[in-house]
Amino acid sequence: MTTSEQDALRVLEELLPADIVVADPDVIASYARDQSRLTDFCLPLAVVMPRTTDEVSRSLKVLHELGIPTVARGAGSGLSGAANASPGCVVLSLHRMNEILEIDAEDRLAVVQPGVITASLRAAASAVGLLYPPDPGSVEMCTVGGNVSTNAGGMCCIKYGVTGDFVIGLEVVLADGRVMRTGRRTVKGVAGYDLTRLFVGSEGTLGVITEITVRLVPGPPAAQTLVASFAGLSDAGAAVAGVIRAGLTPSLMEILDRTTVQAVDEMSHMGLGRGVAALLLVQSDDRDATDLLTLIEDICQQCGALDVARSSDPTEAALLLEARRLALPALERLGDWLLDDVAVPRSRIVDLIGAIEDISHQFGIVIGVFGHAGDGNLHPTVIFDDADPVSRAAALAAFDAITQKALDLGGTITGEHGTGRLKRAWLVRELDPTSHAVQTAIKAALDPHNLLNPAVAW
Amino acid sequence: MTTSEQDALRVLEELLPADIVVADPDVIASYARDQSRLTDFCLPLAVVMPRTTDEVSRSLKVLHELGIPTVARGAGSGLSGAANASPGCVVLSLHRMNEILEIDAEDRLAVVQPGVITASLRAAASAVGLLYPPDPGSVEMCTVGGNVSTNAGGMCCIKYGVTGDFVIGLEVVLADGRVMRTGRRTVKGVAGYDLTRLFVGSEGTLGVITEITVRLVPGPPAAQTLVASFAGLSDAGAAVAGVIRAGLTPSLMEILDRTTVQAVDEMSHMGLGRGVAALLLVQSDDRDATDLLTLIEDICQQCGALDVARSSDPTEAALLLEARRLALPALERLGDWLLDDVAVPRSRIVDLIGAIEDISHQFGIVIGVFGHAGDGNLHPTVIFDDADPVSRAAALAAFDAITQKALDLGGTITGEHGTGRLKRAWLVRELDPTSHAVQTAIKAALDPHNLLNPAVAW
Repeated sequence: MTTSEQDALRVLEELLPADIVVADPDVIASYARDQSRLTDFCLPLAVVMPRTTDEVSRSLKVLHELGIPTVARGAGSGLSGAANASPGCVVLSLHRMNEILEIDAEDRLAVVQPGVITASLRAAASAVGLLYPPDPGSVEMCTVGGNVSTNAGGMCCIKYGVTGDFVIGLEVVLADGRVMRTGRRTVKGVAGYDLTRLFVGSEGTLGVITEITVRLVPGPPAAQTLVASFAGLSDAGAAVAGVIRAGLTPSLMEILDRTTVQAVDEMSHMGLGRGVAALLLVQSDDRDATDLLTLIEDICQQCGALDVARSSDPTEAALLLEARRLALPALERLGDWLLDDVAVPRSRIVDLIGAIEDISHQFGIVIGVFGHAGDGNLHPTVIFDDADPVSRAAALAAFDAITQKALDLGGTITGEHGTGRLKRAWLVRELDPTSHAVQTAIKAALDPHNLLNPAVAW
Repeated sequence: MTTSEQDALRVLEELLPADIVVADPDVIASYARDQSRLTDFCLPLAVVMPRTTDEVSRSLKVLHELGIPTVARGAGSGLSGAANASPGCVVLSLHRMNEILEIDAEDRLAVVQPGVITASLRAAASAVGLLYPPDPGSVEMCTVGGNVSTNAGGMCCIKYGVTGDFVIGLEVVLADGRVMRTGRRTVKGVAGYDLTRLFVGSEGTLGVITEITVRLVPGPPAAQTLVASFAGLSDAGAAVAGVIRAGLTPSLMEILDRTTVQAVDEMSHMGLGRGVAALLLVQSDDRDATDLLTLIEDICQQCGALDVARSSDPTEAALLLEARRLALPALERLGDWLLDDVAVPRSRIVDLIGAIEDISHQFGIVIGVFGHAGDGNLHPTVIFDDADPVSRAAALAAFDAITQKALDLGGTITGEHGTGRLKRAWLVRELDPTSHAVQTAIKAALDPHNLLNPAVAW
């Protein structure tokens, strides 16, 4: 820590309540980074842990006056490095602001603080017969504030959409400590620019979100589940295309490639079979789910499925979905991993998976592919040995090749994880120069001194 | 026209293709305003009618250099004065850019120019078995570009959402003529700030939209229809609340109050009955619509419905919906009208309608209420005599009282029509000062010389 940083820390401790400023090296070490791999991070100067909007506002005012950069943080479960500490920064952790302030069953909405765990909100909604659909993989540990800041997805998006589709209002503290509200409690409203959507997915670069109003939907019946295995990737791709073409909308449609299926089988001994080139997992929570899954089963059979299993029992369904849940843990056993998050138009999924197989051969590196087939959003997972510079270089090169391929196929560098540190440099390859200039102009308009998550801001 | 305006017009005619600059007084008169009432407007300097993005870009470059304000315009069917010409402005009419560029059935999306009539896009989607849901009242004449610029709603929103929920990408020309793209063709994507949503609903104040990519949904079965009449407003309100509480989501749920029902009956002799205090119109296009409408019929009966009629026949359904379609034309026969567009949390609809009845008595003025009960978005229509200053003043006072009441009930000044000229001054009463300052900062960042729709910009 430099002398000026020590001075700043002293001022911070003087001006803010003593129990919200933490500079203990053991504590701050655990706030240095999120769950991403191969992204830059460092130790923050301190961690500020506010309990109220007023404390967030006071903290940002002080940090603004001191010119100290601030990185807001939820649970740190992100996969793009958007919550990684940057040089000389303070991490602002929202974990103490974890109250569900309101569940309004009549108007079907909830008001929560940013540190509420997503699964807790889902449980609270469920208790009154409603559903908060967003279900990122980290649903049991991630926070609603983090989900909003990254516009997190999950497995339900094919039917329900992403986090941002449920956010109708926010309370936000700006870089200089001013507090504002966006949006409203009504389901419709067009007064002024849509600032709610501007903050959704902005990765803490425009303000710190201190309260979130989300809409809830009627609680659906228990989902029914179908798992189909295929001997060829193109067969599974044809089944996905067939489902879309038939105008069917399941509530989940996930795909696992051969590498992932084998890794899962080696870990779990589920007996998925060596001849399986792709596994398709489908759920429906429609009122007529039985009919819907029968139509989807027919499509799978027509596309040459090796085997189709179905269940309407929740316990059995959980077993059928186990392969998807185990995808990353199973691949993790093969080595270090670097998880990608590209998305392509739905019709190009098979092209993308095929290209990833080629990239795997080209770089002599294992890549497991799983993800949200119904959204065209895949998570190719590059397996490498972090201790071996050659392997590490190959992993990064393969990762880049996959990301470029997604762009070439008319897709995006990130479907749901965000750019963060991991893909910040890629942004200029997706956005045209004018669009990028507008992004920069908006950042400058809201945070003229570039103090909010400067290492991530685009 | 002042001398400097004449000079500017000459330069414009010199620098732009001759056939896209129109200064003929008869023509420009028809581009002076939209369909709103009691909003300011004037004759524009000229109307520019570009045919391509390049012509829009060249036009804005020239106008930018000349410092001439520009008001972009679709069909001019708006109800808030957002397309009204302001002093010394040029109206940029997008009506010649009316091509449907692409309907991609496999990826379920469409790419259109801004001047495409909304009904044409719906027909083109329908031809390949898909649905473009947005259905504003003016669907047969309004343009997709205008819908995007106002984030238009309609009757389908209770199930499908508003225009912005379907827009996934835009091409936009900025104030200085630079062309940019926002969004993408994938269903998910989080690279950079959500500029698409920033332009949606921005009423031409941030840029001119020259291309729109929308997502389409599977074409639903033909809708089934139910109409229920009630002797008391609170009975109808209880039915609406009952439908929401039961977790049922029809594709349409509209309400008409006593004044509107009587006006429709006097015009159409539909025999709606003098004892009717409220009419509820419901549709479902779910696969199990019959079951859904049976549940809703039961709820209506339990809430004391006088009469319930149902039909699955499209022709009969259209007749049942006729009362809603005739609401504004029927009220129009009673005098001049001023249409409001407030929205409240769904649970407060009956409170709002009750308050409007009180306001009607207080100001001694007829107010018919109809609108989207399922969204809490109502269109109270104040009837007055424009030739009588006393009546006009009463109408404006009643209009203000209704708008204030919506805010008091936790609602918004505009659910789907936008602020435009009509409610520009109200914006500061809905937004807090910091939120308003951020709106202004964004406008300044994108259009520093305030040339795009300056009379509307907030």
